[in-house]
Amino acid sequence: MDAEIIAVGSELLTPARLDTNSLFLTEQLNGLGVEVAGKMVVGDDVGRLAEAVRAAVSRSGIVILTGGLGPTEDDVTREAAARALGRELVYQEDLAARIEQRFRRMDRKMAGINLRQAYLVQGGEPLPNPNGTAPGQWITQGGAVIMLLPGPPPELEPMFRDHCLPRLERLVPKQFIRTRCYRIAGMGESDVDQLVAPVYTKYRNPVTTILAAPGDVQIHLRARCASEQEAERLLAEIGPEIERLLGDRIYSRDGKPLEAVVGDRLRAVQATISVAESCTGGLLAEKITSVAGSSDYFVGGFLVYTNRLKTALAGVPPDLLARHGAVSEPVAEALALGVKARTESTYALAITGVAGPGGGTETKPAGTVVIGLAGPQGSAAHSFRFLGNRARVRALAVQYALDLLRRALA
Amino acid sequence: MDAEIIAVGSELLTPARLDTNSLFLTEQLNGLGVEVAGKMVVGDDVGRLAEAVRAAVSRSGIVILTGGLGPTEDDVTREAAARALGRELVYQEDLAARIEQRFRRMDRKMAGINLRQAYLVQGGEPLPNPNGTAPGQWITQGGAVIMLLPGPPPELEPMFRDHCLPRLERLVPKQFIRTRCYRIAGMGESDVDQLVAPVYTKYRNPVTTILAAPGDVQIHLRARCASEQEAERLLAEIGPEIERLLGDRIYSRDGKPLEAVVGDRLRAVQATISVAESCTGGLLAEKITSVAGSSDYFVGGFLVYTNRLKTALAGVPPDLLARHGAVSEPVAEALALGVKARTESTYALAITGVAGPGGGTETKPAGTVVIGLAGPQGSAAHSFRFLGNRARVRALAVQYALDLLRRALA
Repeated sequence: MDAEIIAVGSELLTPARLDTNSLFLTEQLNGLGVEVAGKMVVGDDVGRLAEAVRAAVSRSGIVILTGGLGPTEDDVTREAAARALGRELVYQEDLAARIEQRFRRMDRKMAGINLRQAYLVQGGEPLPNPNGTAPGQWITQGGAVIMLLPGPPPELEPMFRDHCLPRLERLVPKQFIRTRCYRIAGMGESDVDQLVAPVYTKYRNPVTTILAAPGDVQIHLRARCASEQEAERLLAEIGPEIERLLGDRIYSRDGKPLEAVVGDRLRAVQATISVAESCTGGLLAEKITSVAGSSDYFVGGFLVYTNRLKTALAGVPPDLLARHGAVSEPVAEALALGVKARTESTYALAITGVAGPGGGTETKPAGTVVIGLAGPQGSAAHSFRFLGNRARVRALAVQYALDLLRRALA
Repeated sequence: MDAEIIAVGSELLTPARLDTNSLFLTEQLNGLGVEVAGKMVVGDDVGRLAEAVRAAVSRSGIVILTGGLGPTEDDVTREAAARALGRELVYQEDLAARIEQRFRRMDRKMAGINLRQAYLVQGGEPLPNPNGTAPGQWITQGGAVIMLLPGPPPELEPMFRDHCLPRLERLVPKQFIRTRCYRIAGMGESDVDQLVAPVYTKYRNPVTTILAAPGDVQIHLRARCASEQEAERLLAEIGPEIERLLGDRIYSRDGKPLEAVVGDRLRAVQATISVAESCTGGLLAEKITSVAGSSDYFVGGFLVYTNRLKTALAGVPPDLLARHGAVSEPVAEALALGVKARTESTYALAITGVAGPGGGTETKPAGTVVIGLAGPQGSAAHSFRFLGNRARVRALAVQYALDLLRRALA
């Protein structure tokens, strides 16, 4: 049984907004073994929306509408669903009473317009909404089920979990989806793909998807089977083949991000880390401390944008800066050693470079980054030349720095 | 004339991926005065896709398909478009030659499968793709135009700009869309909405949309008129009413983010800024330095996660920490003064707090944040209690810190 999701709202058709409720719903539906066969965004146009619902119901067993359940004239979801299914909208005294009560509880006077939310598609069941005024609706027609859910995620998500999932579980022939997610640092997407395509293209199930962010490639395997064992067996067949090809470039087998993998490792060996950042301006520390509990191993460090502060704070000798320039291996190494000494951490990472767009020279163009690493075994620096805009260069620098630390900890 | 956008690809129907090409296309189409009436995501299913194209062409004058033009069997866009329009696919010798040439230039052997990309929907025009192998296609049928565009943004965007826009300009009756974007710091979305709704609900044109990120609310006004002057006149009518209501909580009238507004102001008065970050762990500095050219005013600072480093690096007296705790106004102020003195900056911001989920106490629960600000006029500290998870608390802390600096600079 497949599902379709229709997001309702003209604001979702502007350049500034995306429907993201469908990501939550897809994840929930996949958990039941239901695939999403199509997604749609329709504006606040009752005719177009009714047509979209009619078409979706004719194709798919599960049709979910999100949004357009508010009290204003723009909110056309109830009306469109009724029209598509050839039913009436029926006024429900008890829903009206509950909406009025909600306003009283908040000490607010209810405008009459809110009673539009007390209409139900004939034969539909209301779905309680403790987090807002608009009730959802669960409607069956032929073999299909149509759900009308509110747009705001804090209303939609609990409503779906508490009232739709249990109903769907009774309805849907059980399928099992099992996934595995490998993450790889320090390789481009196409290089990863070229390496592993000969493996994954042999399989229709699991389905393989490759996603990429700067310096971070994810390989998602998705097996969909009638039994959990069968799904696990398929993953256990293809997984090791991929692991063999990528070796230690795989830093995570469960989707955990690099900063969490490195953090776990630091905690395990009771080591601490400090940072000195120039061109990344705090991004490395921000990444490390985005992990809850990172105070177990992160102590702090320096933001040294100017040469003066590289010397004053991290103790980089002025003549080293004069001789090699701020973006150089000796300076990156001195920064790492300096911050390690002054914070008394076990390890230290330092990043200096030209993030761009300005500041580049012939020999050190924008994208040139040097990473220093100091630890109990000594110190070293590594030079990189990254392609892309300022944000991408900074993101790559942080990812490569964390990967250097991961390898030092291995 | 309205447009519909169909994104093709089963990967876009998983919980991990969103179609974002439609945002770029919507912005471009809006620039011509064309509204997007619907968006759709369809998997790699030739039957479903053909049906979707047929329906879209029957409704809308402009139909854009993105993705599914690759060389593999999963790439069904050409086939589906041909089927929907009742035409044949025709092999083009010259396209095939160009694809082969591209592979030769990259010193790669071309697999025969790539010649699938040399098929054109009969009567269609190929759109050159200098950034990839798959040419786009421009097809007219009745009064409608159908575009097949490659999925990767670096291929799609230049192709649309260079080859679709000029053709569309000749086709579309000119409408003008003018926009204005106010940004507001330090207020919640619903508070902003409640304040300005009495104004914007009076107008159908311009259309008003309110978007919110932690500590940052945007009000978008969008006027669509037959003349540029009329659109500007409408914006000039509603704009000042909104400005009057929000006063100095508006930090930007052109959509510029807070960190850039503050940076411009620092540059204008030739002042510099340093930071000392505890719970935000680099996020404030990262935000400041995400702006190109921020080295004009950002000098650096301290990451002081541990109490020991608050003393060792920023010079916070140990007895102050012992007496008030790290999350306190005296410590925040001392941090700001310490980093200002040691970096010799004009201004300094310090953030200390409990980002959560752990680390909270009865009197200082997760979400408690204290921000210190030091400048030429003296120093002060402000306490906040933010709601939400770790990422939200950190984002709010940074936004409120930048807004304190903005007000100090005003």
